[in-house]
Amino acid sequence: MPESSKKICVVGSGNWGSAIAKIVGNNTLEKTDMFHKEVRMWVFEEMVNGRKLTELINNDHENVKYLPGIKLPENVVAIPDVKDAAADADILIFVLPHQFVRGVCKQLQGTMKEGAVAVTLIKGFDVAEGGGILLISDVIREMLKIPCTILMGANIANEVAKEDYCEATIGCKDKALGAVLKEVFQTDYFRIVVVEDEETVEVCGALKNIVAVGAGFADGLGYGDNTKAAVIRLGLMEMVKFCEVFYPGSSQSTFLESCGVADLVTTCYGGRNRRVAEAFAKTGKTIEELEKEMLNGQKLQGPPTAFEVNYMLKNKDMESRFPLFTAIHRICKGETKVAGFMDCLKNHPEHM
Amino acid sequence: MPESSKKICVVGSGNWGSAIAKIVGNNTLEKTDMFHKEVRMWVFEEMVNGRKLTELINNDHENVKYLPGIKLPENVVAIPDVKDAAADADILIFVLPHQFVRGVCKQLQGTMKEGAVAVTLIKGFDVAEGGGILLISDVIREMLKIPCTILMGANIANEVAKEDYCEATIGCKDKALGAVLKEVFQTDYFRIVVVEDEETVEVCGALKNIVAVGAGFADGLGYGDNTKAAVIRLGLMEMVKFCEVFYPGSSQSTFLESCGVADLVTTCYGGRNRRVAEAFAKTGKTIEELEKEMLNGQKLQGPPTAFEVNYMLKNKDMESRFPLFTAIHRICKGETKVAGFMDCLKNHPEHM
Repeated sequence: MPESSKKICVVGSGNWGSAIAKIVGNNTLEKTDMFHKEVRMWVFEEMVNGRKLTELINNDHENVKYLPGIKLPENVVAIPDVKDAAADADILIFVLPHQFVRGVCKQLQGTMKEGAVAVTLIKGFDVAEGGGILLISDVIREMLKIPCTILMGANIANEVAKEDYCEATIGCKDKALGAVLKEVFQTDYFRIVVVEDEETVEVCGALKNIVAVGAGFADGLGYGDNTKAAVIRLGLMEMVKFCEVFYPGSSQSTFLESCGVADLVTTCYGGRNRRVAEAFAKTGKTIEELEKEMLNGQKLQGPPTAFEVNYMLKNKDMESRFPLFTAIHRICKGETKVAGFMDCLKNHPEHM
Repeated sequence: MPESSKKICVVGSGNWGSAIAKIVGNNTLEKTDMFHKEVRMWVFEEMVNGRKLTELINNDHENVKYLPGIKLPENVVAIPDVKDAAADADILIFVLPHQFVRGVCKQLQGTMKEGAVAVTLIKGFDVAEGGGILLISDVIREMLKIPCTILMGANIANEVAKEDYCEATIGCKDKALGAVLKEVFQTDYFRIVVVEDEETVEVCGALKNIVAVGAGFADGLGYGDNTKAAVIRLGLMEMVKFCEVFYPGSSQSTFLESCGVADLVTTCYGGRNRRVAEAFAKTGKTIEELEKEMLNGQKLQGPPTAFEVNYMLKNKDMESRFPLFTAIHRICKGETKVAGFMDCLKNHPEHM
């Protein structure tokens, strides 16, 4: 093994984490000149059918709880302590629910190997103290003092695990590092484009859930394909505008990548934000009631993201420049009626 | 009526032509300082329930054959002779099946009022002599010696006629004229963005049908949302590349307009090109057989557009730069199997 071969740790082992560990494990097996063969995966220990989940993964090479039916490569090793898992890692792949990021980073603080880098696959924002939003990558950068790059795209874990063809986008300002990360993730069915525009890649992954709520409203109100297309497109234009205002230097071409238009469209046609928002418009129940009924109490990401985004827009007196985001937030909060949703878009700045 | 008030003629009276005549007629009624109140509509005369279609429209103010159930404004006047309809018109709105454009223009040659302009709403290419493609707007420009602008978007005629909220894009290099055309078409439910990039607006409206065939293949082969999103996005990137190569000067932002991503997505989720292509992948029947069975003998636009585009790409030795367009053409022709569709995308230049 050459000295330069890089060690990889996957921090997280849910549905998406396990699917990514499969890809990365297969790549390190093949590319032994670039990567250390063993891929460590941090697994939050729990008992499954009377056995430890780490044991199940290490003996049977299957995450029976979160990605059943899919064989993981044998060089993917489950480790229950996050510091052990990440020790000596050159590349840390963060793929866990965003509410756990700070806790995990706290455990890892001060343990990073020199030259280590992170990749976050986590969709959604962190909430700043006092309101507003923070990027997950900024949380990782600040807490661990290492660079953090981004991987996002139209990726449903089970489809990726089945090796169906799809695409993803890596946001990485450092070109040489971007080329290495492409080797970590790309396979003949998981196709990667690397762009330099880190912020846009990450912001798209969070804002799309707001737009999906709007698409669900349009569906629930009985509108057809034209109207839904207009809602999705105006949502995309507000995503573009949001990046221009809050993350200047973003490139419009990034919105044409998998992290942009592809992930947005998939989320607005499939996806649970759309589904619950459709039910919201049809039944008149609250978001909270529907989360209980339809998601077994799990929370949607669209409405809280709309809330945090609105906090920033209101503070900057910019609500009127983002009428779609603003209307979706107010409707979710019960401040305005969903029946008037399209009326909120009749004077959109895009059409001035 | 001020001297400068413009006379408008709608050349065509099908489903989309009638829906547009309703919009334009209502706008000229309101904006009497800008437009002549009467909107003339050329109607190809035919008998409907023993009455002339022009009489039906002029007496009952409804196109019972092509847009039943929708009242047209009384100032929309149906005229069976295209030269009479277009006489003195300042703005001619072309909205008829593209195979009739040359015949109609031939009748109108030499009759154009000085300063007259055209707007084409016609989707699809004209076929150049000897193969390859011509823009419909170029046919109109060359035959009538007047400027020709473009209106395209995610617009299903029946939804527009019902006044459901939607968007459209006008491509017009002349800013002052663009502002006038916006007044012709925009209502509070039909929202217009004017861009200068005429070619891209028009080319998107034709190429999207090729991509929709690919989306249908992905559906028919049983792939999920990820793969379909990748097909749609790679199609969009080939549309961008096609405009760069053949219509240099196109702007990437135009692809984010209604004529671009919105119309593409609608066509790839709804639309008959997608539907027939899905059946093609599932049944193994030919496109011609399926057109007979599913479309009552009407022709799809995707496969012939793929054929004409392929003619140009082959001539320029560029097939490998457009693997999606090329694969769709070959599969439609029976030269390669649809089962291998995704394999054709495994080395797409986007991922190099």
